Amino acid sequence: MFESADLSHHVPKAVFKREETKLREALLDAQFDLAAQRRFAVLILIAGVEGAGKGETVNLLNEWMDPRHIGVRAFFQPTDEERERPDAWRFWRALPPKGRIGVFFGAWHTMPMVRRALGETTEAEFAQAIGDIRRLETMLCDEGVLLLKYWFHMSKKQQKQRLKALEKNEATRWRVTEHEWTFHEMYDRFVGVSEPFLRETSTGEAPWIVIPGADPRFRALTFGRHLLAALRERLDEKPAKQVPDKTPPLLAPADKVTVLSALDLDQPLDRDDYDKELETLQGRLNALVRDPRFKEMAVVAVFEGNDSAGKGGAIRRVTGALDARSYQTVSIAAPSEEERAQPYLWRFWRHLPGRGQVAIFDRSWYGRVLVERVEGFCAEADWMRAYGEINDFEEAMVRHRIVVVKFWLAISKAEQLKRFKQREKVAFKRFKITPEDWRNREKWDRYETAICDMVDRTSTALAPWTLVEANNKLFARIKVLRTFCEAIEAAMETTGKKRKKKG
Amino acid sequence: MFESADLSHHVPKAVFKREETKLREALLDAQFDLAAQRRFAVLILIAGVEGAGKGETVNLLNEWMDPRHIGVRAFFQPTDEERERPDAWRFWRALPPKGRIGVFFGAWHTMPMVRRALGETTEAEFAQAIGDIRRLETMLCDEGVLLLKYWFHMSKKQQKQRLKALEKNEATRWRVTEHEWTFHEMYDRFVGVSEPFLRETSTGEAPWIVIPGADPRFRALTFGRHLLAALRERLDEKPAKQVPDKTPPLLAPADKVTVLSALDLDQPLDRDDYDKELETLQGRLNALVRDPRFKEMAVVAVFEGNDSAGKGGAIRRVTGALDARSYQTVSIAAPSEEERAQPYLWRFWRHLPGRGQVAIFDRSWYGRVLVERVEGFCAEADWMRAYGEINDFEEAMVRHRIVVVKFWLAISKAEQLKRFKQREKVAFKRFKITPEDWRNREKWDRYETAICDMVDRTSTALAPWTLVEANNKLFARIKVLRTFCEAIEAAMETTGKKRKKKG
Repeated sequence: MFESADLSHHVPKAVFKREETKLREALLDAQFDLAAQRRFAVLILIAGVEGAGKGETVNLLNEWMDPRHIGVRAFFQPTDEERERPDAWRFWRALPPKGRIGVFFGAWHTMPMVRRALGETTEAEFAQAIGDIRRLETMLCDEGVLLLKYWFHMSKKQQKQRLKALEKNEATRWRVTEHEWTFHEMYDRFVGVSEPFLRETSTGEAPWIVIPGADPRFRALTFGRHLLAALRERLDEKPAKQVPDKTPPLLAPADKVTVLSALDLDQPLDRDDYDKELETLQGRLNALVRDPRFKEMAVVAVFEGNDSAGKGGAIRRVTGALDARSYQTVSIAAPSEEERAQPYLWRFWRHLPGRGQVAIFDRSWYGRVLVERVEGFCAEADWMRAYGEINDFEEAMVRHRIVVVKFWLAISKAEQLKRFKQREKVAFKRFKITPEDWRNREKWDRYETAICDMVDRTSTALAPWTLVEANNKLFARIKVLRTFCEAIEAAMETTGKKRKKKG
Repeated sequence: MFESADLSHHVPKAVFKREETKLREALLDAQFDLAAQRRFAVLILIAGVEGAGKGETVNLLNEWMDPRHIGVRAFFQPTDEERERPDAWRFWRALPPKGRIGVFFGAWHTMPMVRRALGETTEAEFAQAIGDIRRLETMLCDEGVLLLKYWFHMSKKQQKQRLKALEKNEATRWRVTEHEWTFHEMYDRFVGVSEPFLRETSTGEAPWIVIPGADPRFRALTFGRHLLAALRERLDEKPAKQVPDKTPPLLAPADKVTVLSALDLDQPLDRDDYDKELETLQGRLNALVRDPRFKEMAVVAVFEGNDSAGKGGAIRRVTGALDARSYQTVSIAAPSEEERAQPYLWRFWRHLPGRGQVAIFDRSWYGRVLVERVEGFCAEADWMRAYGEINDFEEAMVRHRIVVVKFWLAISKAEQLKRFKQREKVAFKRFKITPEDWRNREKWDRYETAICDMVDRTSTALAPWTLVEANNKLFARIKVLRTFCEAIEAAMETTGKKRKKKG
């Protein structure tokens, strides 16, 4: 893996100067084209052994490139805000949009390797981390990100020579501390871990590129030339490959019995009972979010449903029980320009709640497998892979002690017609009904298929769907509130149990 | 995940009869087209809970389809021959060729799930197994296999009802033993494991299709209709997607210093020293393969090198030290028709040695990243992903205590010219030189680039490349033999150490 990098490389100063000038010009051109095209984002990962020139390369990038279209992020200790979210959150928030270059100095690869090298994780846990990284990176590539991963390498001998040379020179002595020598002693252990890591996270679309780090000029040229070639290749679009769409079909059941058809949408509940239950449940919910244990968790609630199924009303009954400082409602409509420049899930990751907070999504990431699928806004391959990506996303939340509750509010086609007509009659409700609602209604059957597939493919033990019979609004609201409370209670119990076990 | 499957489904007998007739006809048509087109293979995985109709479905397939183009394989305990090879070997040897349908009844998914359900593996080990499966299945899909994964499901209640019904009936009572009831008691544990498994091994290209198993007629129709739709979709080719080739470029080093240029190809060794060393080393190798410890291992040796670099001569010096019953030489040329109908690595998997055996590959799976890359026989995306697939392949061998030694025999361009001319002069050597050799020689530089990338991307701690300076044939043969012996000795020591630790 490091055969070439371990060789003695050298570029004379004069050659470097000449090449560097050409390279800088070409890189700026590429950067300009990237910004003008705005077709894809570039994400550069900088990693490698100590002293092999990672920092110098980042500095070089800042010097070479137009700073308006490049952003460098170094990841060290997570901030408080970051610690409250799943690990991947801080990487998501730092992703470059289309047209820009993002440089991650130490990213998702750092901790798994360090922990393995220190013996804090087993081989199987290390393999698990590698699997997670492959899935994350595959997703980024599928979303069109040009992912370039550079590994800066030097041999143990070269590292020692470098440290000694730095120590000898008055001007650079300060750069060598105990810390550097400790790292040097750990060289074999670290490289022993990074070798399988590089191997197993190198895919056809995102292979690691090893950069020999010992000679600064060779290093800079090698890195710069590769970056330029990779940018140019994507900017100039190599002839596209014709690939057949390989996703197998999903079919509706032969007997038409579906999770939706099996629901009895008309559930009785009269106003008096409703009022009583509402009060009890809102009180229960309020007590739950003020429970000290709630400070160690968070809730993400997803509301999806047919048009006019009563999502808004149900959400208001939930938020009515909450303190305004403890929740946020996120209405998902068409994505903004900023959001369209990012991978699909970006606009949902950004709204993940911190500890003790509730985030309520009025429509959600399920848009991809519902409206985008039915309307043909994305290719079949894209919504097919979305099921897995969504499950991974929700698993990341649940692993981080975020309770995920998901509601599908279901009404019958006849009930919807009644409500649409009512809305058109009542002046202050008229804004709620648009020609688009009528158009969606025509695609009722196709939506039903999409909904059933969604439930089958994303209702998991960690984050189950709750189907809510919603022809009777009162019943629906009560079922939502009760499920909400029960989900929080169940999570509190699990946490309690875990603590007991530890104690 | 199992929401739809848990519903009560039912298809009346008359409906079924009518539908089945149509379905069978259409399936036979599809099968005929598949065999006529010979464009892709179909692999069907049958899995699921006990009693949900897996066996019945396989029987049905045999009844419905043309038996000449379908092959069913049930995987239970591995045979002796299979146990001597890496786990995946038995699946590789059973893969259907293009134009045929293969049915795997219990495959790579079975053991990881059973072991996890029985608590024999940790969550991290389970995740590792899932990662391995994703990589295997991704590779199969990339190679064009239509992979259809069916999961037969029934609820715990349905399972109980079924067992009771079978017990009640005189004719079927024999089918219910202790065994079945033990499985029933383990239902929750098993489904608790299969749920995350299905979720995490469902990808866009190979999602699990859940088949509700309780009603035999509904089950048969659901399965048959999906199989037909999936076959038809691929046979009729949905409009192909234009995707940009997303592989980043690999570049030659700026200073032209490569692992090849750094070699001193002319190494001295005179005939007398050679004769002495040859005898010693052949004796050492012979003793090693007769060592009792060798019965627990195997060797796979790869010989690659420039044309006329002396691969054949080096191989003969190795085999000269071996008993004819203990080795096999595999010469790799253009693939046969049978081999072209399979995924790329199939023709190498089939030759993996059993315990105590040596397999010597004269050219190998590296053809994809050498000749196929340089000659443009495969797309860039295909040879780029091959590095990872090859590393996975060799890792599977090493994990299974197969020693992997890989030699690149390197000669200079001038030395090659000398040998080519010599060959043309000597009558009994003339068969060794063809116009193709001269053509390859013209692509010398492009081959060098490919060789260096190959070494950088596939020389791993588990299976390192040995570069052999081969302008002097005598030196090359001795280096090969010595490396061969040392690799076996190192592996014996590791095994010895492990045993000591256990003891």
